[in-house]
Amino acid sequence: MPALPCWLPAYTPLDDFSLENIPFGAGVLPDSSSACCVTRINTYIISLNALADAGLLDDLTTHAGLSVRSAFTAQSTLNAFMALGRPAWRSVRTRIQELFTIGGRRDIHDDESLQSKVMHDASQVKMTLPCTIGDYTDFYCSKEHATNVGVMFRGGPPEKALMENWKTMPVGYHGRASSVVVSGTPVVHPSGQLRPDPSADPTHGPCRTVDFELEMAVFVGTGNDMGTSIGVDEAEDKIFGMTLMNDWSARDVQKYEYVPLGPFGAKNWATTISPWIVTLDALAPFRTNAPVQDLAPVLPYLTEKHRHTFDIDLKVAIEPASGEGASVVCRSNYKHLYWTAKQMLAHHTVTGCNMRPGDLFASGTISGSDASSFGSMLELSWQGTRPLDLGNGVTRTFVQDGDNVVMTGCAQGDGFRVGFGTCEGHVMPAASGR
Amino acid sequence: MPALPCWLPAYTPLDDFSLENIPFGAGVLPDSSSACCVTRINTYIISLNALADAGLLDDLTTHAGLSVRSAFTAQSTLNAFMALGRPAWRSVRTRIQELFTIGGRRDIHDDESLQSKVMHDASQVKMTLPCTIGDYTDFYCSKEHATNVGVMFRGGPPEKALMENWKTMPVGYHGRASSVVVSGTPVVHPSGQLRPDPSADPTHGPCRTVDFELEMAVFVGTGNDMGTSIGVDEAEDKIFGMTLMNDWSARDVQKYEYVPLGPFGAKNWATTISPWIVTLDALAPFRTNAPVQDLAPVLPYLTEKHRHTFDIDLKVAIEPASGEGASVVCRSNYKHLYWTAKQMLAHHTVTGCNMRPGDLFASGTISGSDASSFGSMLELSWQGTRPLDLGNGVTRTFVQDGDNVVMTGCAQGDGFRVGFGTCEGHVMPAASGR
Ligand SMILES: [Ca+2]
Ligand SMILES: [Ca+2]
Ligand SMILES: [Mg+2]
Ligand SMILES: [Mg+2]
Ligand code: NI
Repeated sequence: MPALPCWLPAYTPLDDFSLENIPFGAGVLPDSSSACCVTRINTYIISLNALADAGLLDDLTTHAGLSVRSAFTAQSTLNAFMALGRPAWRSVRTRIQELFTIGGRRDIHDDESLQSKVMHDASQVKMTLPCTIGDYTDFYCSKEHATNVGVMFRGGPPEKALMENWKTMPVGYHGRASSVVVSGTPVVHPSGQLRPDPSADPTHGPCRTVDFELEMAVFVGTGNDMGTSIGVDEAEDKIFGMTLMNDWSARDVQKYEYVPLGPFGAKNWATTISPWIVTLDALAPFRTNAPVQDLAPVLPYLTEKHRHTFDIDLKVAIEPASGEGASVVCRSNYKHLYWTAKQMLAHHTVTGCNMRPGDLFASGTISGSDASSFGSMLELSWQGTRPLDLGNGVTRTFVQDGDNVVMTGCAQGDGFRVGFGTCEGHVMPAASGR
Repeated sequence: MPALPCWLPAYTPLDDFSLENIPFGAGVLPDSSSACCVTRINTYIISLNALADAGLLDDLTTHAGLSVRSAFTAQSTLNAFMALGRPAWRSVRTRIQELFTIGGRRDIHDDESLQSKVMHDASQVKMTLPCTIGDYTDFYCSKEHATNVGVMFRGGPPEKALMENWKTMPVGYHGRASSVVVSGTPVVHPSGQLRPDPSADPTHGPCRTVDFELEMAVFVGTGNDMGTSIGVDEAEDKIFGMTLMNDWSARDVQKYEYVPLGPFGAKNWATTISPWIVTLDALAPFRTNAPVQDLAPVLPYLTEKHRHTFDIDLKVAIEPASGEGASVVCRSNYKHLYWTAKQMLAHHTVTGCNMRPGDLFASGTISGSDASSFGSMLELSWQGTRPLDLGNGVTRTFVQDGDNVVMTGCAQGDGFRVGFGTCEGHVMPAASGR
């Protein structure tokens, strides 16, 4: 499949934001005080609200006859668009491709006044959270990560590290939606209860083991009613798209607090997502087989007709405040995950939990089998016992104040690329007294 | 303190909704299609939006000079009012008391046309969720409940049942906000992964041990920014008020899934709250000392200047579909909790988690030391080994389809009462095929 040609100046398909991508997000345009819905092609931010206002989405409707235009009118988030369903998401992506392809529709190409309303320089746009996130959930779907954590937190050999339930369900927990922030938002070094010496009383103080977790997260589009479940083979049509996620973690806080109700303060102080939601339609060329599930029989409600996932290369870099530049500390891939997003959604709703447009669920840390593919400093430095060399004599066991943690993700096609942009955040020192 | 006199017909102070109470909620009035903000005195629902429209709140402002009136104008939830802060909550409650006290303001008393806008019969009003709940958290603050669960789920003697962290922090986990529903909403019998026989593979099927959990929950009013914490002695001014809560639980699902990340599908299918939020000002006459915390040293960030809680009698009744009438199965009291709401809020924010107006956090199951005060069927029937007699030969070990579970809560003053109304819900059979 050759790359789509695009009439935008200096266009290249070898960019995260090719014409094959058309991700969705929200951002504040120059000379505006509130956010609007946007997509991006190379360095051009395209206002979906302006496309709708210009009547360019008027002929697009949902199966139920709902207007696509009204889902953007005066909207600062994607929630209304997410609620419309996959045919609407598809038709908008296709329309945008038509408007910017050479040989496609000339509405924008031939109208400079419209161009000034629709097209904006990415460097001038402040990206915001793409939608209101009603609920955020974090799963734990990497066999390699769960094995590593089991060995480190509970001891024993790797082949005994997985809990029995891990083998028969995508284990997950509810996270904190209020502290999900968009890439670029600084996060503050957390304090909490620590008990480094289990024979002594716990203390209250700054976390000594600030960590990232490399994850990918799914935004729910259409949801389900309370008391109903989403079938594993209908789950894909409910998924609006995917982002990169850094599930910031305070390891020492986590280690003391997590029994028996799971992580709480260790995780709720910040979670960073990339601003762009890449649709499953854009990811379709990168489908690949998911790992064979041979740990235990898979129950029917989790058994997929087609056991597919996506081949998405992931990278984490640390950029110290001291100016050495970014140093890659992890290379992983979304396809390593044992449980797929479809299985996560089916399991999330199995007891009748309702999902709403804009709800978010994350994969859990994405580690591969190779030590350089581990998705957290906890694993990369093996609980701090193996410092990582960032070059120029700089080393890290965990994340330090001033560090910028930068995650990127990208699927490489034949002559084009579909990428996620960056998911990054600086760790700031806490104000004194905390 | 004698009860305030009230000019409403047939008024009695010996009612959950006395003039001393003035709880806040939201509901749909007769001949209206959307909800508005309301309070209640005996059987009269009072529209706060109508009071605001009539100019009766115009002179009330916040310390920052924000208008109280605008927090109700065209609002269908309490979130805007919650964000104004405790002086505003207080001034509105006091104004309503002035308007309905004998010898107080005559604005409503003397204006029949205004009465028809402001006052409505409770039986004609459909109560809704009082606010948009951004995040919901469930704590685990009853020593008796945590001990009972520890003994049943993990074995061993009661004095060893508490985890070490339980003794030094209010342990909690994030819950699911989307499935928090208002009293009266039916809930659907959940299915999930069960493993009654740990030596066999798990199965997918209907939960066999549907349970309630008697809890009280706090609505956050003003919150805090991400990266900051709320001090334990400033926490009370951040709390808008309290409700009753039934944290519906699927015990067999919970038992298999909860390691190591905590309860998930076992809890996210439904959580019922009473429609009325009772303020801490209304509860002030019922302050009492909280239990002495002697299990372990309390860290400074959790140490309260005044270790107070509230004396609130709580009851759970089961009303079987077969028509025997409601049978009380549990009598407990909010004052039993080892950790206070102030400590929960300080701990919730200790790592920097931000709270928003309308966020909800619950106490965990409120059990006393007496077996008749246990707040769940799990404890009352001791894992199903001791069936409860509901009268007329009807027994229960857990909740059955068709049962209505009714929670009530009330503080008894000298000649008046401050109550919470009811928190109830029927369990409906699942649609076939689930
Ligand atoms: Ca995680
Ligand atoms: Ca609970
Ligand atoms: Mg997080
Ligand atoms: Mg619940
Ligand atoms: Ni296939």
